[in-house]
This record gives sequence, structure tokens and C-alpha cells, in this order.
Amino acid sequence: MEPSTNNFLYPEDGHASSSELSMTARVLNIIRNEHEISRTDIARIIDGSRSAVVQHVERLLSYGLIREVGVAASTGGRRARVLALNGNAGYIAGVDHGATSIDVAITNLAGEILSHISDEADVSEGPERCLSRARDMIKRSLDNAHISPERLWAIGIGMPGPVEFKTGRPVAPPIMPGWDGYPVREYFAPSFTCPVYVDNDVNVMALGEQWTGLGHGIENFLFIKVGTGIGCGIVCHGQLYRGADGCAGDIGHIQVNGQTVICRCGNLGCLEAVAAAPAWVRMAHEAANRSTLIADHLTRHNTLMAKDVSDFAGRGDHTCVEIIQKSGRYIGHILAGLVNFFNPSLIVIGGDVSKTGDVWLAAIRQEIYRRSLPLGSRNLLVQRSQLRDLAGVIGATAFAVQQLFSEEGLSRLLHQITQPGAVIEMSESS
Amino acid sequence: MEPSTNNFLYPEDGHASSSELSMTARVLNIIRNEHEISRTDIARIIDGSRSAVVQHVERLLSYGLIREVGVAASTGGRRARVLALNGNAGYIAGVDHGATSIDVAITNLAGEILSHISDEADVSEGPERCLSRARDMIKRSLDNAHISPERLWAIGIGMPGPVEFKTGRPVAPPIMPGWDGYPVREYFAPSFTCPVYVDNDVNVMALGEQWTGLGHGIENFLFIKVGTGIGCGIVCHGQLYRGADGCAGDIGHIQVNGQTVICRCGNLGCLEAVAAAPAWVRMAHEAANRSTLIADHLTRHNTLMAKDVSDFAGRGDHTCVEIIQKSGRYIGHILAGLVNFFNPSLIVIGGDVSKTGDVWLAAIRQEIYRRSLPLGSRNLLVQRSQLRDLAGVIGATAFAVQQLFSEEGLSRLLHQITQPGAVIEMSESS
Repeated sequence: MEPSTNNFLYPEDGHASSSELSMTARVLNIIRNEHEISRTDIARIIDGSRSAVVQHVERLLSYGLIREVGVAASTGGRRARVLALNGNAGYIAGVDHGATSIDVAITNLAGEILSHISDEADVSEGPERCLSRARDMIKRSLDNAHISPERLWAIGIGMPGPVEFKTGRPVAPPIMPGWDGYPVREYFAPSFTCPVYVDNDVNVMALGEQWTGLGHGIENFLFIKVGTGIGCGIVCHGQLYRGADGCAGDIGHIQVNGQTVICRCGNLGCLEAVAAAPAWVRMAHEAANRSTLIADHLTRHNTLMAKDVSDFAGRGDHTCVEIIQKSGRYIGHILAGLVNFFNPSLIVIGGDVSKTGDVWLAAIRQEIYRRSLPLGSRNLLVQRSQLRDLAGVIGATAFAVQQLFSEEGLSRLLHQITQPGAVIEMSESS
Repeated sequence: MEPSTNNFLYPEDGHASSSELSMTARVLNIIRNEHEISRTDIARIIDGSRSAVVQHVERLLSYGLIREVGVAASTGGRRARVLALNGNAGYIAGVDHGATSIDVAITNLAGEILSHISDEADVSEGPERCLSRARDMIKRSLDNAHISPERLWAIGIGMPGPVEFKTGRPVAPPIMPGWDGYPVREYFAPSFTCPVYVDNDVNVMALGEQWTGLGHGIENFLFIKVGTGIGCGIVCHGQLYRGADGCAGDIGHIQVNGQTVICRCGNLGCLEAVAAAPAWVRMAHEAANRSTLIADHLTRHNTLMAKDVSDFAGRGDHTCVEIIQKSGRYIGHILAGLVNFFNPSLIVIGGDVSKTGDVWLAAIRQEIYRRSLPLGSRNLLVQRSQLRDLAGVIGATAFAVQQLFSEEGLSRLLHQITQPGAVIEMSESS
């Protein structure tokens, strides 16, 4: 039989079919997800026999992607050896490109952060300037972590706008002039040989939350990012949901009841226009005559940021508390509708604005529980992300590892590992 | 090795594991979905070898669930024999319980309708009265179709309110007093030996649309039912999405911009309260002084229905056209937000109200395209269901067949087939 184009080479057994590779990937992801697990328990999860699992485990061991980490507690019979991801087999760069900043982290395959740097950057300066800075930051981060570039297995990038998932190109991003259709992946090819994966920032944050945050093990949840804009990552049946055109979760332009502020998209009363960071600044300017803190600040600095509104509210300024509550109520109002529609069991709130005090979160919750149906909200949790400033880079890493350990990514990776010169370090330190 | 509790008996080979049964179910569903397909093409879809498929096909043939229907067009080599579902191996009763009517259809496994009856019924009369009528209607439909009750393999029921999927019991249904927690499945046990599956009406309609309607082969779409209430069935990644508590798609209680009509749920301005059939009637009463058609009708009959508003609009009554457009715009406004959030490629509109003229559908479309982001709506289709009055019963049947052909349903079914006295008819007529 002719090998199909999907086949790849296992050094020890010639060609393996695509379905075998798919099962190897599945076993690898179970081990990654469960952290430590025996062969028997893997067989239980995939509903197969232990012998069917063993060959995939042997392959993953021989490639150095997993390792044995000891034995499980005895349950009467022979004590089972426990498997874990070999976290330091390779390394990942996670890039969180925000509207006004770039964060880069180097992690191992288990998501442990080895180095992290952050820089101001203006996404509106266009792709060449921003991506050259990101590239330099990746190199610097690798240096800081003492990792040589050939041990970098993947780069994951989150962008602050819609991205065509298949090609990794931004699509008509509203706050990113010059980025429409730009080949982000290809930009990195001369500098790094590893694959580059690009997606929307909230999508990767949802994946990060699923991997190491509150979303771990949750089948259906939403990740809401509130910063310069407002977006939503959707996890449905345990998988990231991107929608028919890859732009699902664009909730920033849903209209809020009775609001008429003009949004940058041209419509009136979009959620983003009345509740995101720039809206706080606008409302603070409008209310300067009612708050001495705002007025003094404007007199001294002639400008003001959302963070200042948050600070003043923390110092008891009633006008700023009102601004924050208004923003929370608008967001909660839209989320109430989405709770009726999507019935998630968890909503995680992240992004820069989420660092504000509990007044904001309370207003969001109050409006969700007031307006959504009791049946759909009786088990609902609404929580602030605990990954905080790292949500973006952890998400970008989680996304890259997910892609790398997919059937397609694994096919490429195993080829690469069998090339002469490839280094797989068997480490006990992860 | 001990057989697990999930095992079931294949007469020819003793115990089969749960994963084998799961693959048998998968092969059966591929054949059902593709209508006619060769063994080689099934192997291509499941990414496995032809020999792995053959044993499952042989089992399904030996149980009479599928049959060979001829040979495929030659592609150079040996001509492949083509497999199809044995549609007349068993029969299904589909029950569409609306707020004011019950529809019952008997279909074969391929969804071909053998008999269909419809009766007025008031769901608020409580479960005993309604379900005894449904039971009698099933018996009558079987008689009409000349099918004996023991050849009925499953009953699928769609209810006009939230249903706990696992138990088939209605949960706090707003228009169904007396139904909360009622054991609908168990009610039928003394009369029929086959399994009974119960779900929300819009969920089953979405499944019907996926099986034989516009949703066939579409990965992500919404089915919107507009009648006495407004609900939404969600198909996500090709599967019906029920949400964390089984109440996803309850869009009837999302608030419409600026509306303050009190809804039966107690909130203000819910979509259902301003756009469903009762809202048409309310608006017509309020506008009686502006329309001679409405005023004359009320004088003669003292009452009026949504259908009358639709008729008057068709006869050119401007006030009734306005009512219909208003309803369409409110629905379109909420759907625009859901398009931003969910980015479906198709929205199917069904339910009694959808039978109204094109003015209503045009108003829905206009508002969706006006308010949703261009990227998310560029490939979006908004269409009226072509299953019309049959959407509910076809959906209930599709749902029952889906459950019957799931791993769990198939385990039960194959047991039943191997019992003495079970009849499987090998028919060529399907």
C-alpha cells in the first residue's frame, strides 16, 4: 500500500497511519492534561485496552516527549509506573501583543515560565516595527533563560484583533492599520526555524485559562477581556470555538440598551464604546466638574487614564465609583443575554481593566444575575482571572503547545526530532 | 478479563468492548448521514483501514440495520458495493408538543413520514391530560401507518420549555404549570416498551434541520423558533449544544433596547414580550383605532390572533405591516448580537410566526446586517425553515434516531434485537 501524504516516519516501525498518529497525539495530550497518569488510567480514558496504549507510550518515551516519574500509590496489585510530560524536552515563546504593549515569555512545555519581559508598543505603528520588536524580545528572552534558539519548538502569538486562523493573518483589524492580511508567521521564518502560530488575543487567553487557570476541566466557559476593547473567548464542549469565519466572540460591538455613544466601528452604543478603558476616560473628562480628584489631575497632567479612574475610586471618589459601576453594569447587561444564549458554567474576566477594585466586578455580577434566567445562572460562577498580567503570554504558550501537540503539529515535530542535529534533553527538573 | 458493565453481547463473537460498540455506532451514523456509501469511503472518513471497517459493517448487516443497495460507479478497479441504512428495519414516533397543539408522526429510520396527525391541545392543562392524548395519538398514528407497536423502536418528544436532558423531565417551564419535574418518559412505559427521549422543542427542531433540512452538513448554525415564545437551538462543531445546565438558547428573555413591556418572566422588555405571537396581538389591539381591518375584526369576533395580523398585512394594511416589521426588527436586533458572539454560517427561522409574509423576514435580515460586524456576517445566510409545520415532528424523530444510534442506545437496541420475538424486516422499499 502506498503511504498517504498524511503519513510520517516512526524510526522504529516505518510508516504509521494518520489514525495511529492521531492516537499518539491523543495519548500525549491526556498525559499533558492529567499531569501524572498511569498507562492503565490512560486506557480507561480512551476506552481502549492497555496494550493499545502501550505502543503509543513507548513511542512518546523513545522521542523523549514523556518520561516515567515514579510509581502510583498501591491499590492492591502491582504498583503502576506513572507517566508525565517531559516538560524540558523543548521550549515555547509566548507573545502577547496588546494595543499598547508587547509581552514575551519563554516557558517549557509544561507552561513553567523561565523568563518574561514586557515593553510598551503601539500596534498602530504597523506590523514591521511591532514584529521586529517582538522578534528581538524573543531573542532577548531566550538569552535571559539561557535557552539556545534551536531548542525553541514553537512561537505562539496573540494579536488584539481578528485573525484568520488557518493563515495566521489579521483580518480587517479595527485598531491595527497596516496589519490587514499581513503574513505574521512568515515574518519570523528568517529568524526562527520553529512553527509560528497566530490567533486573536482573547482566544489564546481562553486556552491559557483552560490549561492552568480557572477553566481547567470546565466544558463550557467564556473568557472576557476588557481593556482598550472588549472581546470574548468561547470554550464549547471543551474546545475553543472560533465560529464560521473565525470571528466568534466579538462582543464589543453588541449594542447596549439606550446608549448612543458613537463607536469607532461607526455604530451607536456598542459595549466597547461605553464600557472599555477609553470610555472610562471619556466619562471622567465629562464629570471633571463633579470630582476634585479628576479636576486636579487634569490640571496637573492635562491627561488621564483608566487606571487613574480606578485609583480615585479606590480613594473613595464617588464620581469615579459611579463611572466604574456604569461600565460594570453595561458589561453585565450584555453578559446576561449571553448567559441566556450560551448557558456557560463559568465566566472569567480578564484584561487590564479587570485589575480594578471589586466594585466593578460586583456591578457585572449584579446585572448578570438580575437579567439572566435563574435556571441558566443557578450554577454560574463569574470570576476574575487569576493569571492577571500573565494571562496573555500563558495563553499564547498554551495555544502554541496545543497546536504543536495536534496531529499535524506532532507529525512535523517528530520529523524534526529525528533529523540529525536535533537535541532532546531528558531532564528531571520539570 | 472481566467484561465491563458497558459491554454488550454480539451473538457471533461474545463480548465486544465499549470502544468497539462506539466504532460500530460511528460506522452506522456515517452510513445514515451519507445515505449511500462504500466500505472504502467509510474507512476514508474514519481514517482507518478498510479491514477495520469490515467487521462493523458485517455486524450491522447481520442485525439488519443496514443493507447493500448496489454497486458504485466504476472508478477503474473492482466496483464497490454500496451500503445504506435499512430504513424499514424499525419505526419511530415523533411527538411535537406545542403550547396549543400536539403533532405526531410515524417515520421509518430514514425519516420518511408514514403517517401524521395533528390536534389542538393546551399544554397548561398539565401532563396527565396532555400525555394521555399524545399516547393515544401515537397508537392512532401506528394504526394509520399499519405498523404494529412492537415494531416501534423509539419515541422522540419535543416540549415547549426547558427539559433536563438526562432525565427527560421539564424544569421550571414558564408556560407549563404542573409539568415541573414530571417524569414524561416513565409515563409511556406501561404503553410502549421502546425507549422514550424528551428534549426542548427548539433543540429537536435544530436536529431535524441538520438531518433533512438547510442545516445538513453545516458545522455551526442556529435554529430560531418564533411562536407563542421565542427559543433557539444551537449546533456547534456539528453537535447540538445544550449548555452547562441544558438551557442554552433561551433567547426569548434577552432584553430589547429601550423596551419596557412586562414579560411573563417578570422582567421588562424581553424579546418574547415584544416580538412573539402574543405581542402581535397586543400591538394590534393597541392600534385598532388606526386600522379598519383590525377594528372590524374585533367588532365581529371580539378576539384576534397573530395569524389575522399576518393576513391583514398581506392585504396591505399598513398598521399590520408596521407591527410585523417591528417584530422582525426586534428579533433581528438580538440576532445581530448573537451573530457577533457566535459567528454562525446559517440562521434558520421556524415556528408558527415564520409562516408570515416576506416583510417579516426582510426586517429580521435588515437588522442583522445593519448591526452585526461585516466580518461575521459576510458569509451568513438567514433562511426560513423549509420543513414548515413538520419541523417539530421531523426534529423529534431525528432526535430519537440520534439517541437510538448513540453508543448507549445501540447497546440497548442490539440486545433487544437478539431477544426472542424481536422482528427485523429486511425491506427493499426504504
